[in-house]
Amino acid sequence: MRIKGVNLGNWLVLEKWMNPALFYGTDAQDEYDLPRQLSKEVYEARIMIHRSEYICERDFVTIKSMGMNTVRIPVPFFVFGDVEPYIGCVNELDKAFNWAERYGLKILIDLHTVPGGQNGFDNGGISGVCKWSRSSENLEFSLHVLERLAQRYGSREGLFGIQPVNEPILDYMWDGMGVQNRYKPRDPEMAEGSGGISRDLLRWFYTEAYHRIRQYMNEDKAVVLHDAFDLMSWKDFMREPEYKNVWLDTHQYLMTAESMGCEQTVPGYLRFIADNYYWQIEEMEHYFPVVCGEWCLFNSLVVGRDTKGGQSVLNGLENTSVESVSDEEKRDIYSVIAAAQLAAWNKGHGYFFWSYKLMIDTVNTNGWVGWDAWDFGRCSDLGWFPSQK
Amino acid sequence: MRIKGVNLGNWLVLEKWMNPALFYGTDAQDEYDLPRQLSKEVYEARIMIHRSEYICERDFVTIKSMGMNTVRIPVPFFVFGDVEPYIGCVNELDKAFNWAERYGLKILIDLHTVPGGQNGFDNGGISGVCKWSRSSENLEFSLHVLERLAQRYGSREGLFGIQPVNEPILDYMWDGMGVQNRYKPRDPEMAEGSGGISRDLLRWFYTEAYHRIRQYMNEDKAVVLHDAFDLMSWKDFMREPEYKNVWLDTHQYLMTAESMGCEQTVPGYLRFIADNYYWQIEEMEHYFPVVCGEWCLFNSLVVGRDTKGGQSVLNGLENTSVESVSDEEKRDIYSVIAAAQLAAWNKGHGYFFWSYKLMIDTVNTNGWVGWDAWDFGRCSDLGWFPSQK
Repeated sequence: MRIKGVNLGNWLVLEKWMNPALFYGTDAQDEYDLPRQLSKEVYEARIMIHRSEYICERDFVTIKSMGMNTVRIPVPFFVFGDVEPYIGCVNELDKAFNWAERYGLKILIDLHTVPGGQNGFDNGGISGVCKWSRSSENLEFSLHVLERLAQRYGSREGLFGIQPVNEPILDYMWDGMGVQNRYKPRDPEMAEGSGGISRDLLRWFYTEAYHRIRQYMNEDKAVVLHDAFDLMSWKDFMREPEYKNVWLDTHQYLMTAESMGCEQTVPGYLRFIADNYYWQIEEMEHYFPVVCGEWCLFNSLVVGRDTKGGQSVLNGLENTSVESVSDEEKRDIYSVIAAAQLAAWNKGHGYFFWSYKLMIDTVNTNGWVGWDAWDFGRCSDLGWFPSQK
Repeated sequence: MRIKGVNLGNWLVLEKWMNPALFYGTDAQDEYDLPRQLSKEVYEARIMIHRSEYICERDFVTIKSMGMNTVRIPVPFFVFGDVEPYIGCVNELDKAFNWAERYGLKILIDLHTVPGGQNGFDNGGISGVCKWSRSSENLEFSLHVLERLAQRYGSREGLFGIQPVNEPILDYMWDGMGVQNRYKPRDPEMAEGSGGISRDLLRWFYTEAYHRIRQYMNEDKAVVLHDAFDLMSWKDFMREPEYKNVWLDTHQYLMTAESMGCEQTVPGYLRFIADNYYWQIEEMEHYFPVVCGEWCLFNSLVVGRDTKGGQSVLNGLENTSVESVSDEEKRDIYSVIAAAQLAAWNKGHGYFFWSYKLMIDTVNTNGWVGWDAWDFGRCSDLGWFPSQK
């Protein structure tokens, strides 16, 4: 099976930049602080309306009609509703399975946040904090959530697989990327002791997660491992026949390519895709089915200036509110880049676009020019994307 | 210009059945009771998240890509935020104009509720109450809102026109339809004195509204009059050259046709469309540009039983949770009926489908089988509708 998929990002795991209204009137930057800055009643009201409106049956119809066959659903560690002050979301996940099965889609459940944080990103649940791997209690909590997810959904027709943890960050990258500069911790004391995850620990966690999940989930469903931003380093890991149906997930954004020196021109992007994604995926396909679990069309060329790895508007760097690229040029740029990326993902086992839907408003708010390229719906409706039907 | 349009129903004027989550934990049936049953904070939180998520820039992109050229936006009488305990929504309307102009759509502003209620429907803002036309204060308030809308948007490129009031009900119909049986008043005392509107009063209001609006809105923008469910009765009214660019809006639902005896079969629907909509619109086109401002594909044949004019699930009548019609049959039924309805609307000046989007869940909630035919997005994505691109 080759995956054509979208992420249902920001539905059950919040990201402020994808929907600022949820954070209105607070200075919370992440899902950790939000319920701590709102009254219980207001937090509940916002979350309840958000969950019921952001994604509903209608979206599964649309996603299917766009030619997709799978959705990746990020879920938080408090999915089962057992962690104060958060509100569980297993009912929403139940509904999603019913919708998926009604309309012929599969679901990859992605444990997107874990207690203590696995990367220090806002989307890891708590900005600037990365202490998950230092606590056996947190590790065990996460494994237990995975077990319960497998138990509840393991034999559902609509299940494609389970991903044990999203974007765990290795120690060399934690240091190299300067995570806490980009995602400043709100409470420096709480952030103390943060740091990247050791390769050994992550390998242990993946192996343990595999066994816990496989207790309840048949081998026709996949266990999907994120590559921890180091795609080529997993060649010797968890091979057949001992481990069955293990997939490797790699996230490849052009803004990261830009940070690595990719020239911000169409030939520059094409060269980068050809010289990196294409052959790396091809090589890793000898070991695992490889899926590009997150990517999009966003790039600095269309924004009109260097976004410094996608930081501009998010981190208050200077940004633009004037379109410097015409609608026609946009379509030309995006469609050629999209075709090249798709060709790379199709050397592997397909892709999940990040993300199906974003609420950003490029017209009424300053500085968001070009950021609609993160939105699969808009990319598709604006003709930036070759039809996947 | 021939209109291909959708209503943005349930965005700025709520209808419980279109999005039950907003009414969760209350027994409010309408927008009048909702803020009176919730704390101020919770009401605000629900409304704020709803308005920001239900419709955003992304939807204008989608609507344009579906081949539409116009949207009809129902607005409440408290749009300007001057009526407690409601929350105004002129900021949302401002944003909508910016989106429409960015993506090449036009907007018909439809004053969908007025103080005291103009029809006693839930979507008139207050179930079972219809006293608007009996109060000169309420009439004047409504005229003033129209004036302010014209003042604010009258010279916007994105404005198609303004509709002075949605679905005012005439006295003969108030009696004949038994409105208060279908939409029970919550407070019988408040409902006392309700009744239909006299033809003379409505004609006076339309004429007065025309002049108030025209002060600020050029004649290239339309004033759109609802026919008060009596399409053929407006032949002598507000003619050129004294009145410029006045359109007539008629709402035609098959569930109403069914109440009038239309047979619940494909030939039955086709015959009804041919014998009624088609020639009536053709005839009224001699007097006005006629638009069908509300319609959809919903019918009892696909539901699998007589919905008694669309009441079944809404009024707790016996309803079904089992699909009795296959997906293929559904597509066949809907697409032939859609084509016939479109042919009728195109004898006039086009249509607005009701509605662009609904949150009803046919999979996880009982009794909603067939109600997805009210949702333009689903009708379009499921191939129930001939492409309008």
